Amino acid sequence: MTKIDLNCDLGESFGRYTLGLDEEVLPYITSANIACGFHAGDPEVMQQTVTNAEANHVELGAHPGLRDLQGFGRRKMAIAPATAKAEMKYQIGALMAFSATGKLHHVKPHGALYNMAAKDTALATAICEGIAEVDDSLILVALANGELARVGREKGLRVAQEVFADRQYEADGSLVSRTKPNAMVTDEDEAVSRVIKMITQHEIVAVDGSKLAITPDTICVHGDGVKAVAFVKKIHAALTANKIDVVAM
Amino acid sequence: MTKIDLNCDLGESFGRYTLGLDEEVLPYITSANIACGFHAGDPEVMQQTVTNAEANHVELGAHPGLRDLQGFGRRKMAIAPATAKAEMKYQIGALMAFSATGKLHHVKPHGALYNMAAKDTALATAICEGIAEVDDSLILVALANGELARVGREKGLRVAQEVFADRQYEADGSLVSRTKPNAMVTDEDEAVSRVIKMITQHEIVAVDGSKLAITPDTICVHGDGVKAVAFVKKIHAALTANKIDVVAM
Amino acid sequence: MTKIDLNCDLGESFGRYTLGLDEEVLPYITSANIACGFHAGDPEVMQQTVTNAEANHVELGAHPGLRDLQGFGRRKMAIAPATAKAEMKYQIGALMAFSATGKLHHVKPHGALYNMAAKDTALATAICEGIAEVDDSLILVALANGELARVGREKGLRVAQEVFADRQYEADGSLVSRTKPNAMVTDEDEAVSRVIKMITQHEIVAVDGSKLAITPDTICVHGDGVKAVAFVKKIHAALTANKIDVVAM
Amino acid sequence: MTKIDLNCDLGESFGRYTLGLDEEVLPYITSANIACGFHAGDPEVMQQTVTNAEANHVELGAHPGLRDLQGFGRRKMAIAPATAKAEMKYQIGALMAFSATGKLHHVKPHGALYNMAAKDTALATAICEGIAEVDDSLILVALANGELARVGREKGLRVAQEVFADRQYEADGSLVSRTKPNAMVTDEDEAVSRVIKMITQHEIVAVDGSKLAITPDTICVHGDGVKAVAFVKKIHAALTANKIDVVAM
Repeated sequence: MTKIDLNCDLGESFGRYTLGLDEEVLPYITSANIACGFHAGDPEVMQQTVTNAEANHVELGAHPGLRDLQGFGRRKMAIAPATAKAEMKYQIGALMAFSATGKLHHVKPHGALYNMAAKDTALATAICEGIAEVDDSLILVALANGELARVGREKGLRVAQEVFADRQYEADGSLVSRTKPNAMVTDEDEAVSRVIKMITQHEIVAVDGSKLAITPDTICVHGDGVKAVAFVKKIHAALTANKIDVVAM
Repeated sequence: MTKIDLNCDLGESFGRYTLGLDEEVLPYITSANIACGFHAGDPEVMQQTVTNAEANHVELGAHPGLRDLQGFGRRKMAIAPATAKAEMKYQIGALMAFSATGKLHHVKPHGALYNMAAKDTALATAICEGIAEVDDSLILVALANGELARVGREKGLRVAQEVFADRQYEADGSLVSRTKPNAMVTDEDEAVSRVIKMITQHEIVAVDGSKLAITPDTICVHGDGVKAVAFVKKIHAALTANKIDVVAM
Repeated sequence: MTKIDLNCDLGESFGRYTLGLDEEVLPYITSANIACGFHAGDPEVMQQTVTNAEANHVELGAHPGLRDLQGFGRRKMAIAPATAKAEMKYQIGALMAFSATGKLHHVKPHGALYNMAAKDTALATAICEGIAEVDDSLILVALANGELARVGREKGLRVAQEVFADRQYEADGSLVSRTKPNAMVTDEDEAVSRVIKMITQHEIVAVDGSKLAITPDTICVHGDGVKAVAFVKKIHAALTANKIDVVAM
Repeated sequence: MTKIDLNCDLGESFGRYTLGLDEEVLPYITSANIACGFHAGDPEVMQQTVTNAEANHVELGAHPGLRDLQGFGRRKMAIAPATAKAEMKYQIGALMAFSATGKLHHVKPHGALYNMAAKDTALATAICEGIAEVDDSLILVALANGELARVGREKGLRVAQEVFADRQYEADGSLVSRTKPNAMVTDEDEAVSRVIKMITQHEIVAVDGSKLAITPDTICVHGDGVKAVAFVKKIHAALTANKIDVVAM
């Protein structure tokens, strides 16, 4: 049976600031990417998020980001590879401390770090080395067909190809920037049918009409609003209806 | 043969800011307390400090502190026990990621956290639970005869009683506050002879002249200046001359 | 005609984190206490908040807090008076830069800083000196009958006595701690009638039944939820119905 | 008589971390660029630095930077123009609060912000608007011949052309990046003679041998080490010997 993982960014609250409907989305996903205190999250939020994910039998993943709480890790920063490597290790280790088993399942870089690493070999290498030095059995979740995924495989890491249900793709496989008007797939039915096609037919149509070959292991979904959670339920139901098994990577 | 451990706070640099003569002091100590990024330190500094300590066969310890970089973790903060526990786990886990073995040797709370926990049962309990949940074989370094040491033993942790060569003691076993004029033992020879007496005769004279029973496992020394490092060499030599073995806890 | 000011804490969002229904509450208040980036707020939020307040003809006030974003400035910290003074000047100056006139109307310390200063003479003095050195015509908003108010008057500042509609008082005039079960006045009608009585009869009944003499200049209201905003409208209507003029201090 | 200003970055200490020999360099400079708490500095350091500069009759300038203490504001960050503008206002206002007169003399963006603004029109515009909205009489110190200087003049600001004694220039007038081997002028005598030539002959030789027309208003010197301070004394003496008056812009 064909299978797919659904991953979602969780644990993005900080102190008195609450973000995301974590408890509502947990029953529908299989992998949680948990913020590690740099771009979002704090130690108490991390503890609570890990506890909630474990209770829902959702796999625990680190979601390390740039040290930029004000910018939510979404602003590109010219960090040195050595910094990136050390910050990966720090954040993964910090999250590990909250896992009941002392183990994590996967790592997915966040925001600008994710996007920069999809194109920058030196940064991608630093990230992969950081992960491997902490635990080389961790699954690296990376943009399908991107540089981070390529370097990860080269370094011997297990790599999960990630796709986005609600994002448009450029012809080179990168995501259309959020600053462009056509960045998002706004029609929910279209988003669902695109995902089904990616999984079953291994292709996706880019914004210029060209077809991209793609073999997704995991789909990124969102839990940051009522509408987002409703869409997660919808996509979960559609996958099941299409006899695609929703299981962790 | 009588033995003692020498511990020192290391890895307190941050970004462009350098603090401490870490490399000079490492050959003379047996346990390193490494800052974990809250009151001092950053991921690259942590990596470098762990690497240096390992090269010198010095045991690795976490030195978690309050989240107060500007105050260097020395200002008391009314943090909730749940916060303290989560922040302990976070900081210990973060440092573990840099250890070549994935293991640490000990944990010593820093600054105001250390002092508050020596008197506050709820805080001491939170700290001990945080340590135990990450790794219950970690040695807890705590003020000799303080509440943190007592709770640690009660919780089943291995506890190392810490004494200070350069600090005066109150009759109740607490340190004379740095805000008082007689907080420090400024005469180096007196400091050395006090330490020898604590180790061999299990007693120390408090500021009011009363005698305190004490059984030290480790002595806190400093590496934050040329004079401090010279004193570490001096105390190391005096211990050896007195046939006291300087070895890790 | 009897008159009173209604003040509210605004501009508490930070980066991607949104807090408070600032735009909904602005039409009903006369003074805005704007977070200055230490316990909440960031420069863009400050600019937006100042612009919104000016558009609503609401007076601009600085709401300086402890440098503790994670704890929202609500955790007591043992900061030195010199630190408090410098941090007051910094935060007031930062907010002034966003005012169209380059001027502010008032200053109200936030959270733990406000509560500590109501009891600590050295801290209260540092706060007052910090305000006076930036602009000695600024109104200091302080807990009615507290130490900060007393020191402010002694230093020659204009002081506004603040009362809380929704909080219970101890017999000594301090607020019942939020950690106690009876800290809040939960019945809205009772809260309104208490406020009217404070303004017109200059007294309030403490939790132990004793009566406190009080002469309020300003009432603290909240805009952090739909229910809070509804209460602000209710209290505004009740004041008007009782022929109490709602105008800025 | 020909004249020139000597400016130096000061107030870069933070909490327990000390950086720079501020008191040693102050007698030899005419303008101080004071860190404002984002890339370096804290409120107490700002107060002390302002007090020291005023005592030495050195003009006060704001040295606003990126909000990146760990990277000392030297790492490029993709901040939005609206963010840059608000952060300029915030930092300038914060420093103003410490000035005895409530006024500042100049503003010089720091590090990556300075370098990005020398090439990015939107960022340069945001910076200039931020300065003008706080005080349009402030002098903007910018890289000679760069985009920030051009936009500043276009916006009606007073602009001071800045040159560097110890840096090599590219043919387009930008500084040779610090990551390149030939970024610095390491020979002190050569550095001095280059400066004299820039002031008196209005030209400088770029790394490729081409000549750049330059009319400096101020020279950037450093106070971050014993050698740096010695060089400031040397350049000060050489300027005087060449009958060039060292006075504030």
